[in-house]
Formats: sequence, C-alpha cells, structure tokens
Amino acid sequence: MAELYFQGKKVYYEVHGDTGETLVLLNGIMMSTASWLPFVECLSKTNRLILVDFLDQGQSERIEAGYDHSIQVEVLEAVLAELSGKLSCEKYNIMGISYGGEVAIQYALAYPNRVRRLILANTCARTSGWLKKIGDGWNEVAKCGSGLAYYLTTIPIIYSTRFFEERAEWMEGREKMLTEYFARADVREALIRLTDSSREYDVSDRLGEIKCPTLVISSSEDALVPMTEQKLIHERIKGSSYVTINGSGHASMYEVPEAFAALTAGFANLPDNCIKI
Amino acid sequence: MAELYFQGKKVYYEVHGDTGETLVLLNGIMMSTASWLPFVECLSKTNRLILVDFLDQGQSERIEAGYDHSIQVEVLEAVLAELSGKLSCEKYNIMGISYGGEVAIQYALAYPNRVRRLILANTCARTSGWLKKIGDGWNEVAKCGSGLAYYLTTIPIIYSTRFFEERAEWMEGREKMLTEYFARADVREALIRLTDSSREYDVSDRLGEIKCPTLVISSSEDALVPMTEQKLIHERIKGSSYVTINGSGHASMYEVPEAFAALTAGFANLPDNCIKI
Amino acid sequence: MAELYFQGKKVYYEVHGDTGETLVLLNGIMMSTASWLPFVECLSKTNRLILVDFLDQGQSERIEAGYDHSIQVEVLEAVLAELSGKLSCEKYNIMGISYGGEVAIQYALAYPNRVRRLILANTCARTSGWLKKIGDGWNEVAKCGSGLAYYLTTIPIIYSTRFFEERAEWMEGREKMLTEYFARADVREALIRLTDSSREYDVSDRLGEIKCPTLVISSSEDALVPMTEQKLIHERIKGSSYVTINGSGHASMYEVPEAFAALTAGFANLPDNCIKI
Amino acid sequence: MAELYFQGKKVYYEVHGDTGETLVLLNGIMMSTASWLPFVECLSKTNRLILVDFLDQGQSERIEAGYDHSIQVEVLEAVLAELSGKLSCEKYNIMGISYGGEVAIQYALAYPNRVRRLILANTCARTSGWLKKIGDGWNEVAKCGSGLAYYLTTIPIIYSTRFFEERAEWMEGREKMLTEYFARADVREALIRLTDSSREYDVSDRLGEIKCPTLVISSSEDALVPMTEQKLIHERIKGSSYVTINGSGHASMYEVPEAFAALTAGFANLPDNCIKI
Repeated sequence: MAELYFQGKKVYYEVHGDTGETLVLLNGIMMSTASWLPFVECLSKTNRLILVDFLDQGQSERIEAGYDHSIQVEVLEAVLAELSGKLSCEKYNIMGISYGGEVAIQYALAYPNRVRRLILANTCARTSGWLKKIGDGWNEVAKCGSGLAYYLTTIPIIYSTRFFEERAEWMEGREKMLTEYFARADVREALIRLTDSSREYDVSDRLGEIKCPTLVISSSEDALVPMTEQKLIHERIKGSSYVTINGSGHASMYEVPEAFAALTAGFANLPDNCIKI
Repeated sequence: MAELYFQGKKVYYEVHGDTGETLVLLNGIMMSTASWLPFVECLSKTNRLILVDFLDQGQSERIEAGYDHSIQVEVLEAVLAELSGKLSCEKYNIMGISYGGEVAIQYALAYPNRVRRLILANTCARTSGWLKKIGDGWNEVAKCGSGLAYYLTTIPIIYSTRFFEERAEWMEGREKMLTEYFARADVREALIRLTDSSREYDVSDRLGEIKCPTLVISSSEDALVPMTEQKLIHERIKGSSYVTINGSGHASMYEVPEAFAALTAGFANLPDNCIKI
Repeated sequence: MAELYFQGKKVYYEVHGDTGETLVLLNGIMMSTASWLPFVECLSKTNRLILVDFLDQGQSERIEAGYDHSIQVEVLEAVLAELSGKLSCEKYNIMGISYGGEVAIQYALAYPNRVRRLILANTCARTSGWLKKIGDGWNEVAKCGSGLAYYLTTIPIIYSTRFFEERAEWMEGREKMLTEYFARADVREALIRLTDSSREYDVSDRLGEIKCPTLVISSSEDALVPMTEQKLIHERIKGSSYVTINGSGHASMYEVPEAFAALTAGFANLPDNCIKI
Repeated sequence: MAELYFQGKKVYYEVHGDTGETLVLLNGIMMSTASWLPFVECLSKTNRLILVDFLDQGQSERIEAGYDHSIQVEVLEAVLAELSGKLSCEKYNIMGISYGGEVAIQYALAYPNRVRRLILANTCARTSGWLKKIGDGWNEVAKCGSGLAYYLTTIPIIYSTRFFEERAEWMEGREKMLTEYFARADVREALIRLTDSSREYDVSDRLGEIKCPTLVISSSEDALVPMTEQKLIHERIKGSSYVTINGSGHASMYEVPEAFAALTAGFANLPDNCIKI
C-alpha cells in the first residue's frame, strides 16, 4: 500500500485504520505483511495498524550483501519517521514476534523516545549457541535445493503438536504452498541472509536500559525459542509483565489468535500510568 | 453510586465511563467494589465499567440464612437487567476472579444471551474436596475470634512469595487494615456465609454448554486455586483460550496489574468473529 | 529403638537394615520417625536406614526455651557421631524433606565431611517473608485451642487436590487422628516452637559452599514451599541435579511414594564419580 | 560382547555385572550400545546391565526392507529369552529412552510376564502428526547427502540451550564425529529406515493394559517429544509415577546423568510391593 526508499532499497509497508493507539506489528523471519491478513480487519477497528516488510521480506527489496539485523532497525526507523510526519504520531506501540521481537528490542534501545509500549512475543535477547546451530541447519538444508526439505525442517517445529493435529487440513495447505515457495532459489537465498542476520545478535546485557512498559509473551510449547529466553527478558526489563499462552507453539498468533490479539491490543491500548497498586 | 433491591435486600453497584464495550468485574470472596479502585480510571477510559457488591459483600446488604452462590447469579441478573434498560446494552463482557469467576460461569450457563465474552481469572468450575477443607479451615479460624489469625490464614496464601517480598510495605498496610476489619464479628460472619456458599458448587459437567468466546487466566504461583482447575475449564469450554500470568499468586489483579488489565480489556474489546485462521 | 542425650535432653533415633549405603531421613515439621513407617521395610532392604526425632518431635524430648533450628543440626551431629563409632560409617547420605531439608542444608554446611550425598525434597534455603507469615498464622491458630482449626489450617495445604480426592478415605483417617492429636496443648506448644525455630532461617548466600553431589526435588503442586525456592537451591549448588515430581503436593513422600523412594535410594546408592559425560 | 541371530540377522548385545536387579537399557534412534558407555561402570556395580543394538543400529545387522518397529520388539524378546536361560532371570526391569521407550511399551504389551518394572524416558505412545513431519524432514535431509545438514537438523534439537552452551566443547566433539558418521550413505540409509519404522506407531489406546510398576520421565526442555506426550502415558498407565528432569532437553541421560541414573536404578531396584500408604 505504501513504500519508501531506504539506502536505495524499496521498503514496503501498510497502514490500516485511523483510530486509537498506533500499533506496529513486526514479522518473524518467514513472515511478511501478508501474514497479518487474518488480524487486519479486527485490529484496525480499535487501532491504527502499521505493518512493515523488512528488507529481504515480502514486497520489500532483496539485498545481496551480508548484514546483521540492526539494518532492519534503521528500516523501521525510516518508516516510523516518515509516518510521524504523516500521522502526527510521536510514539508507537510496537509488537514484535520472534525475529520481529529481536528488531523491536533493538529499536527500543536505539530510539527509546519513539516507543510508547513494547510487546515481545516468542522472542529472545540473544541468539544462543543452540539457536545458532538451528539456524545453521536451516541454511545447510536451504543449500540442498529441496523446497520440501526446507519446509519440513523449518515449519512443523514452529507449531505445537496439538495445533498440528487439530488443524491438519490447514497445515496441509501450508505445506503445499510453502513447499512450492521454498523451491525458489531466490526465496531460499533471502531466507539464508535473514537467518544469518540474527547470528551474532546479543543485547542481553542491555535490557536494563529499556524503560517503557513492556509485556513479554511466551508459548508453553515453543520448541524454537524456549521459555527460558523470555524469562531472561522479563527478569532484566524492570517492571515488565510476563504471560504464557498455554498449548501454543512458536507461532502463537496463529495457534491461539484471540489470546494473541487480546494481549497485543489490550496492552497497547492501556492508558498511561493509570493503574496504581 | 447506585443501588437496587433484590428480594428486599439492597444491592450496591457502580457504573464508570460511558464509552466502548461494557465490562463487568466480579469480586473475589474478600473483595468489594472498592477493591477495583486502582483500575477504575484506567479501564473506564476504554470501557463502560460495571462493579457489583454481591450480597454479604461491601455496601450490599447482609443476609442471615444459609445460601449457595447461585443467589449471587440472580443478584447479578437483577443488576444487568436494570442496566440493560438504562444503558441500552444487550450483552455484557464479564470478568470474574475467584468467587466472582464461579458466579460468572453460572451466570453464563443461566443467561447465555446476556454474555458477549467471558473472562475467568484464578477460578474453578467446582469446589474440590481439597478446597472445601481450606474453606472449612477459614471458617473454623473465623470462630476463634482473632482478626489476626483470620488475616494470617486467608490473606498471605493468595499472594506469591515474590510479590509479598517486593511489596513488603504494601502488605504491612494490608495486614494492619484487614486485621482490624476481620476483628469485627459481623465481618467474619458474612465471610463464613460467603465461604459456605461455594461449598457444594460443581458445574464441571456443564462447561460444554458455554458457547461464548472465553478466556481462561491462571497464575503460575496460585496456591489457592491451582492451575489444574483452570486447565479443566479450558479443556471443557470448546474454543476457549488459556493464558498464565507468570510470577503471580491468586490475587493476579494486584500482582501483575498491567497484564491483568491488558488481558481483560483486550479480550473484552475484540470485535466479533474477526480473526479467521 | 535407640536414644542418646544431647545437652541433657533425650534424642530418639532408629536404625534399620545393615547393608548398603547409609541413608538418613530427616523429618518435616509435623512428622516423626513414625511417619517413615511405610518406607522402612522397603528402604532397609537396600540401605542402612537412620531415622531421627528432632527435639520437640515424636519420642525426643520437649524443650521449653525458644531456639532456632541450628540446634537440630547439633542433635543430628550427636546421633551421627555416635553411629560413626558403632557402624564404622564415615559418611552419610542425607535426605531431608521440608524442615528436615533445612536442617540437612545447615548440616552439610557445618559438617561437610560427614555428608556423602544430599537429597533435598520440598525444602528451601530461607524462610521467605511470605513463609514467615504462613508460620505465624499456624501459631496464631494454635493459640485458639481448637485441634480442628489447627488441622484444617496446616494439613490440607500440604496435599495436592488430586491426592486429596483420590485418597479421600485416607485423608479422613488423618483428619480424625490429627485433630485429636492437635487438640493437646503440649503438642501445639511443641509445634509452635518448631515453627518459630525456622523463622529467621536464611542460608541462601552460603549454598555455594556445598560441594557434595546434591539432588533437589520439588513437587509441581507444592503450595507451601513453591518450586521457585527449590530452583534457587539448584541454581546455587553447583552441579546439583533438579527434578520435579508431577501431580504431587508438599508431602511428596506420601503422594507419589515410589518416585520419592526411587529418587532417594537411587541417588544415595550411586557409586562415586562413576558417570562421566 | 555377545550376539545371536534373529531371522538370520545378527543381533549384538552386552551384559555387564552379575549382581542385583537385571536392568535393560534400550537405545534412542541414533544411539547404540556404545552410547551407554559412560553409565556402564556405574550401573553395573548395582545391577546386571543388558544393552542391545536394535537391527539397523550399532553392531547389529542392517536390514533392507521396510519394517515397523514391532520387529525390534521381537529382537528384544529373542535376546531376553536367550538370557533367561543363561542368567536364570525371569523378569526384567526395562528402561527405554525415546525410540527405545516406544519399543519398551510395545514389549510390555506383548510380553507382560517378562517385565518387572518399566521406565519410560522422553518417549511417547504414538507418533503424532507433528512428529511424523519432523521425521519426514530428517529423511528428506538425509537424501541431500550432506553429513553436516543431517547433523544440524537432528542433533542440536535434542539438547537444551543450557547444556549446549555449558558443554560447548563436548558438543563440538559430537559435531565433528557425527558429521563424519552421517556423511556415510549406509548410515543415513539405516537412519531413514529406523525413522520410518516409527511412522505408524500408535499404542495410546492400549496403555491401560500395562499393569507393572511404571515410571514416566520427561525433560522440561524436550523440544522433540514434548511433555504433553509423557503426561498422556502417565494418565493412561494406572498407578504410574511421573517426574520431570528440569533444565534438560530430550537427551536427558547426557544432560543430567546423575538424575537419570538415580531414577533408573532407583526405580528398578525398589523391592516388590513394599511401600504402602
């Protein structure tokens, strides 16, 4: 719906709704603005919703060189700076899931004055030695050239057993669509770059600098970013709240969408400083 | 702020705010409308908020005879029927915590057409054999006549160790105030009746009848109504979502107020049928 | 079966079996050597079993003056020193549950050379501000003079809902027996002293000194000493192992006896330094 | 150390120790008798230890045709029938981890009179739709021909983040060794067959038939066979005990070896029917 250029690269973003608190939703690694389609109608009724494709995602441009994901922080800043003029919005409520949560944490560290509230779902403050190897595995499999191998290695792991079985038909649709998508070399190359851009990420020692109200969300069955990582974030961001979505895997927004939406919009829409116990 | 008469007994209630979805907050056993004071300013900005003192609570009248808490279901219906006329409101979003959640479940079973969405915090679908004995203990201690003994037996157990230590000064204030309050025989007698009114409660086999969108909230450190009870509710109300507030005891609204408010308002304010995965 | 005198006070203890590793079982606050009767036949087949009544417990003598539970550490040392001569045993495997675990930790700090392996069940390294109030409550209720009030306040809380319901008849037997027992003023006075002896306990900063192999056991439904306390012990005793008995309350030895016995005997009977990963 | 022929195929097994209860340890899918080396000295001091390579594992023979893992049940029966004569042993305590646990459950169903006690670690009663896809992924990657891709896809996922980081050097050794091993086509082909042999496995409806004392072990960080699967086993095997090894991933025997060994030997060595609560 809208685009701008960041360092000569096209960045695609969308704005939905024109009422209520502004809410930015940041994508996980294999997501794009299109992934939020099931939520757009609902959340744009109560909020001005902003979606962004990071570089190498969705309708934003591909980038060849190696990079770390602090570049996405600047991409986000380019979008929000532009929108601050257009929308007369000073501060944003930012929800990031997984990779998007990593960018959200870094953004809150780099641009604290832009962030009103922070919602961090299924994410981590560092790429652990373990998670590095998981990512390395995805990239090795990507090189094999099989869309199916890549699908089977990266997608089932982000869902819970319960969801996978309850929504078997939906999952078959995903498999069909994504196996074809991952069969494209350019797609796998972009995913390799995105995965690598997280490799050296570690801001665990800087979490104490985050002062805005923060909600940390984990999923009880998250096999990819285990709850120990979210607990660490909660312990280091003073005053943060921490909840778990039960029976959900890593892709919490699809597995328990009403809880996900209630937490995200509910936390974003809390007025300032109004609860005092 | 307002009152009506139910079977000749005065029922006290409050309405705050005049915008957004209507949200009813139902009290735990030792709470009253006054307990929600820290939330009124905040939640009434986004919602029309309704608070009710059950019979034998707060500013509602005392009742002498033994009763079970289905009487509170009719008290609530009297209030909401009256407000339906005044506010032109057909359906209510109802949040009940602990005892209030028990009444909320029964209300949703008795008056399904009045309930838009249900939020059940730290509550259960039945008074287990174990919980009966806990309640019997409170009542035996009430008969001892010591406000301090009653305070020490009933209040610390509803907080987590973490909160108790972090908010030591606040807890001391509670101890001082509540020890005096519980020293009053009439207060203890009302609490004995309220506790007894839950004794034979069991709607666990009827949960399948609840069809409205439902959010179940538990606390990781709830020593009074353990998470096994909330899990049972979630498993039997088809399509319900289930989240846990981490690091919180039974009194989740005071321990992690922002998560509690975000979940409650966030779930109440979700538009109908708008997320489709 | 055997006794000795510690500072002029009779200390009762038992030795069962004469084979295998020596295993000391230390009582929780309301237990005595008699509480281990269901385990004696079983554990004494594979181990030399030592049971001890602390002062103010079971068949050991009452003590009038206030004391903290480091006195029980010296009572234990008196017993083990005597047995070291009789049994030619240099080192003991010590399992302590709840209060017994507190004494076990202090013993391991005071007499490290006597301890071969340490098993800490449902215990803590400190009496938290919260637990102090729970204990204060027990003592206030004790002063009321009702055996039933004391039973209802102290005993149901140490069992899980599941066990309480599955073993309803057994629990009724406990209620009958213990209500009578707690009706005795001398019994309640001893329990008041025992409870108070834990009040100022805090060795959380010294846990790093413990070097012997240690197993920490928690119960998923422990409402009295929550899992956060056992996690703290595990994190501070380097190299300790940490397991949870699922579906059990505080009284894990009665709720899931085979898991309790397997863990205790299994850990005590592991040969030295023989697993190397 | 010993071998026999089953349907013309060589089956390799080992017996260590000649005292105490007989304890059979059954391998996970990528393990072999050699994987238990760190435990042999320790466990054979208290138990007669039996290790077996299933067909397509370790030093047992490869089999070409497709098969399901009920064939391994008969392999195990061949070994135990032979040993029953040699060792005058009627009943065996059987511990199976992961794939080995699946075989153990099926063995207990097929040969209940041979099983004294059952220990089921990190295993499941069925291959869920989700787990099928994980296995399919491993097999697709195996076909890519890269030992490294196969290592990265199958091995890190079975360890916890904690262990992976604490034992970084050990993990590097595994990576080096296993990457070379998995580079062999014959090894990958055997692993494809073993993985496929679990594909249609489902005995979840038959668990009620198991009557021997059973201990179910899960790991808090098991990303491969989540705790929901072990909970299902526990709920359906009447009287079973259920514990969790905290801070451990799927490979619990390597991550927290003392807890694993204590649970296994401790449960196997409990005398019959001797605890009565």
